[in-house]
Amino acid sequence: MFTFEVVILGGLGGPGENSSQCFMLRPYRSKGIKSICVDGGAGAAQICDTLMLQQKPVSERDQLAFHYYEPDDQQYFLENMIDKQSVAKFGFSSETLDSVSQERNALKKGYKIYQGIGEYYVTHPHLDHISAMVVNSPLVYEPPLVSEKTICGLDFTVNALQEHIFNDTIWPNLTYGKLQKLRVKTLQHSQWAPSSTFPQWEIIPFQVCHGCKVAQDSKVYSTVYLIRDKVSRDVIVICGDLEYDYEGENHKNLLDNVWRYIAKNVPFKHLKSIFIECSSSSMVACENLYGHLSPPFLIHELKSLYKFYGFTNDPFDLHVVIIHVKLTVSDTDPRKTILHELKELVRGEEGLNKVRFSIALDKHRFVL
Amino acid sequence: MFTFEVVILGGLGGPGENSSQCFMLRPYRSKGIKSICVDGGAGAAQICDTLMLQQKPVSERDQLAFHYYEPDDQQYFLENMIDKQSVAKFGFSSETLDSVSQERNALKKGYKIYQGIGEYYVTHPHLDHISAMVVNSPLVYEPPLVSEKTICGLDFTVNALQEHIFNDTIWPNLTYGKLQKLRVKTLQHSQWAPSSTFPQWEIIPFQVCHGCKVAQDSKVYSTVYLIRDKVSRDVIVICGDLEYDYEGENHKNLLDNVWRYIAKNVPFKHLKSIFIECSSSSMVACENLYGHLSPPFLIHELKSLYKFYGFTNDPFDLHVVIIHVKLTVSDTDPRKTILHELKELVRGEEGLNKVRFSIALDKHRFVL
Repeated sequence: MFTFEVVILGGLGGPGENSSQCFMLRPYRSKGIKSICVDGGAGAAQICDTLMLQQKPVSERDQLAFHYYEPDDQQYFLENMIDKQSVAKFGFSSETLDSVSQERNALKKGYKIYQGIGEYYVTHPHLDHISAMVVNSPLVYEPPLVSEKTICGLDFTVNALQEHIFNDTIWPNLTYGKLQKLRVKTLQHSQWAPSSTFPQWEIIPFQVCHGCKVAQDSKVYSTVYLIRDKVSRDVIVICGDLEYDYEGENHKNLLDNVWRYIAKNVPFKHLKSIFIECSSSSMVACENLYGHLSPPFLIHELKSLYKFYGFTNDPFDLHVVIIHVKLTVSDTDPRKTILHELKELVRGEEGLNKVRFSIALDKHRFVL
Repeated sequence: MFTFEVVILGGLGGPGENSSQCFMLRPYRSKGIKSICVDGGAGAAQICDTLMLQQKPVSERDQLAFHYYEPDDQQYFLENMIDKQSVAKFGFSSETLDSVSQERNALKKGYKIYQGIGEYYVTHPHLDHISAMVVNSPLVYEPPLVSEKTICGLDFTVNALQEHIFNDTIWPNLTYGKLQKLRVKTLQHSQWAPSSTFPQWEIIPFQVCHGCKVAQDSKVYSTVYLIRDKVSRDVIVICGDLEYDYEGENHKNLLDNVWRYIAKNVPFKHLKSIFIECSSSSMVACENLYGHLSPPFLIHELKSLYKFYGFTNDPFDLHVVIIHVKLTVSDTDPRKTILHELKELVRGEEGLNKVRFSIALDKHRFVL
């Protein structure tokens, strides 16, 4: 019934520096430490913190979970931020914990789980999506836990990482030389690539738009990844930052290409979940979205997908996991606000009113 | 008696992504939120986390402080990791807390304290020293808390930030245009510069060595900052990552230049503290230090300073705060190991045996 396990190492969209976007994926109930990550905004330290909290009683964990806005407890969050038909629990699976049970402390356990990351699939080279992946990277050479990792992305991502990050100025060039343990791999737009970590998985990247540069008149790009299990044929979709990119009749809508591909190639019953950003609430004006979605634009995209599936009265009970919410200055947690707005928006929408929404809560794992 | 307050927003040297180097400084007992930071490896989120913990009883805070190695409590850490003659307490001062007491939640309080940062003095452009400063930076435009910040550094730092970070590829170029709220300023090696945040302070940078590039045969540089209060004439020294750089008779020892300058220009009684890195324990071989210090090399540098002061039997009771310890895979917290090694090493050293060592504990503030 379940195919994927997704641990939310980082589900936020800034402007704080912690819990930036990183999703750790492994096959459901797989034994051992192996995983792949989509983005690398959080990493080894977040893994250790999660383990530290997971070993405490739930009552203490409530105190330990940081909720900057209201003093809600974890139970509230789980009941209200996760769709009731979906399964999300705190921390790592028992299989993952078993595989590090012989390590003596949280740091050793956490670093071992980190070493199990075989590939990073980076959506775009903005710092909040790569910082932990980079800062953690010397660990691949740290005995006794040496490991090998491949950083994958479309050309604009891989080129930026090599030119601006692993360049011996911003970070030591740990990708240098043919025998290095840290490698980079350029993926091709809309072409399936095999996972070297999980032979039963394949991944396809789609280039999408993510706003404009400040000092130059050109677009910023990002990536949507589809991950398919070749055995179950289930697919999950994980999006990088992206925007509503309709700009007139002659504009090539990159995001529509993604929805069209999914509708054509993924039977709806195999579409387990879409992780998609909704950085800001509906209150934020279009010109202040800076290449991101707010609830009305997200709903517009879901409508496009519904349309491409050719549905009319079919139950469109898609599970949509909201990622990359920005923690703005407000009284109410913007994750609550955005979730509320989304539910209000689909209420009146024929077809979309069965869509199920969850928030990607840090340090929680979804099974899908 | 005290001149400086230093909040340790990040005191670690990786490889985890949290609590990377950032020191927040303000004049002792100054009212309001104004501060300057040396490095920006931690920031707004760490400030919020610190506030969340500070409002809890000490007994609960122990549970909340993450110690990945042994289950020590905060009391142990304070008693053993901070020199007994020195003053270090958890969290922000009552003056800082008072200045944000009207804000309704930890996020609003924390972001307000973040907005008080007027200048960053960056030691070098390695990602663990800049990541939070960059990721937090859109907050300078976030109403109602807009602020202005200047990022200062030697030319190699400022050039790298502009070419590789604020370049519309790794991060939006928020420094673009003359009316921007985020500005950069190039400092001159060994020349005092006024602080625009605190008129009574001036800062002088010294270029030092920090290892070699991986893919090119050239040096990596870093910076040591002296911060002087013009009223009390007290000085504190905060070092970026650095190495023992003696490489033969003809080599220009940049670090010796710093010690020589200090001995000549800062009366010892005004030298309140030196924050200096000791990334690895003595067990790490020279070739694996990668541009960092271990205890024997740190002691060598303290001897140089002692020598330049021309001391013979004078009590050299300098307060040395150890920063940038790497959290390696081990049973014992490497901060404990390094502190123990340093104390053992000075025990037998005439002159140096009065040196007082502390560890820069995250989320604690020193008054100096």
